[in-house]
Amino acid sequence: MAEPFHCDFSGRMFLGHLGNQMLNAADFHSTDRGFGMKYLMSIKRSWVLSRLAIEMEEMPSQYERYSIETWVESAMKFFTSRNFCVSDSNGRVYGYGRSIWAMIDTETRQPTDIYAIDNGAIDKWIVADKPCPIEKSSRVKMTENAGFVRCIDINYNDIDINGHVNSVKYIEHVLDLWDIAWYRKHRLKRFEIAYVAETHQGDKMGFYREQTAENEYCVRLVKTEPGEQNAVEVCRCKLVFS
Amino acid sequence: MAEPFHCDFSGRMFLGHLGNQMLNAADFHSTDRGFGMKYLMSIKRSWVLSRLAIEMEEMPSQYERYSIETWVESAMKFFTSRNFCVSDSNGRVYGYGRSIWAMIDTETRQPTDIYAIDNGAIDKWIVADKPCPIEKSSRVKMTENAGFVRCIDINYNDIDINGHVNSVKYIEHVLDLWDIAWYRKHRLKRFEIAYVAETHQGDKMGFYREQTAENEYCVRLVKTEPGEQNAVEVCRCKLVFS
Repeated sequence: MAEPFHCDFSGRMFLGHLGNQMLNAADFHSTDRGFGMKYLMSIKRSWVLSRLAIEMEEMPSQYERYSIETWVESAMKFFTSRNFCVSDSNGRVYGYGRSIWAMIDTETRQPTDIYAIDNGAIDKWIVADKPCPIEKSSRVKMTENAGFVRCIDINYNDIDINGHVNSVKYIEHVLDLWDIAWYRKHRLKRFEIAYVAETHQGDKMGFYREQTAENEYCVRLVKTEPGEQNAVEVCRCKLVFS
Repeated sequence: MAEPFHCDFSGRMFLGHLGNQMLNAADFHSTDRGFGMKYLMSIKRSWVLSRLAIEMEEMPSQYERYSIETWVESAMKFFTSRNFCVSDSNGRVYGYGRSIWAMIDTETRQPTDIYAIDNGAIDKWIVADKPCPIEKSSRVKMTENAGFVRCIDINYNDIDINGHVNSVKYIEHVLDLWDIAWYRKHRLKRFEIAYVAETHQGDKMGFYREQTAENEYCVRLVKTEPGEQNAVEVCRCKLVFS
């Protein structure tokens, strides 16, 4: 259920809450198939979210029941794609998600072979023919004209069990670049994010924004580590409003 | 279940997530009895959280199942007290919560008579003799020695369906005053908050902190509205670590 205290000023569920529920659904699905984070941690492996796109025709309203279906669409040596469908109790679709994941060695932080787990068992779970009728993520193109918006500190509540900034916290901080007056007049239709580097507590995070079309904005996030001068790109987002 | 992406770096559920689940439980419980937020909104009334204290012997770990029990301990004309018990699937208690609520007129923002709803029906739901073995909230005493820690902007994601800062967001921002190095060595045992005024998007929120005993800190939150010079107190917290 879209519980009231997970909803925004308009009574619609926060995209951040939906995003975390998608990540939870992905973990439950992979845990049931022997690929969950808890097992992977025990063999010094971890899933790392590389890209996420969420496109919603509508967000669940408070007290509405919704379900998240997830499946693996494809897998290669270093990447796998996982899709999501969010629907209500009557099967009406609210929207879809697409995600790309890498598997890393938690000591070297380098990509590792997904097919090395349980003799390539992931192939057994691939559902290639189930439709996910939203566009795949594409490269977010930005110019040097993107304007600096703000800089924030990364704190305790930004960090998840992986020890770095929670994938969805980036999304929340980006959505915070617009104010409620904007959200009263614009509905977020699509959010797309490509992760480049990890951010840790104590880093400072800067936001650069550029309008790329009518109702379309791109945002570049950079981090500055403590004691460092140079900012490093950590992710890029594209938002489409309607 | 304490879902993995609702857990902090240590794999324990975020207090903020538990707090919102308590508020959701309170709403479900009162909705079932004809006192829910949705109904109250229709008659221009709303519950306003006045005080909240949460005291945990342990926080649920990732994948652990927990339940939140809630009941009304007492009611008066302008205030009602509601308690919480958080336990695991075997009935082992993680901790307790105590809360005090007022009912306001959403137009005048003034307190209204709780007994005016459905001929004092709240009396039917009072469970006076169920134990809640944690201390009641007391006045948080602070001196002028409290030191300024930081100031933040209030953004879209801070605001809930009531149109002002979500009660639990204050808690999250206060917990962010300590860093992960601190949380590695200290467990938060008790968090107590007394709400004084509402904060809105666009306000700036300042934090003043004072150590009041060994492992005990008090925090005063103030807001500065756009265009205003003067800061106004919005809430006070007391944190006890162990």
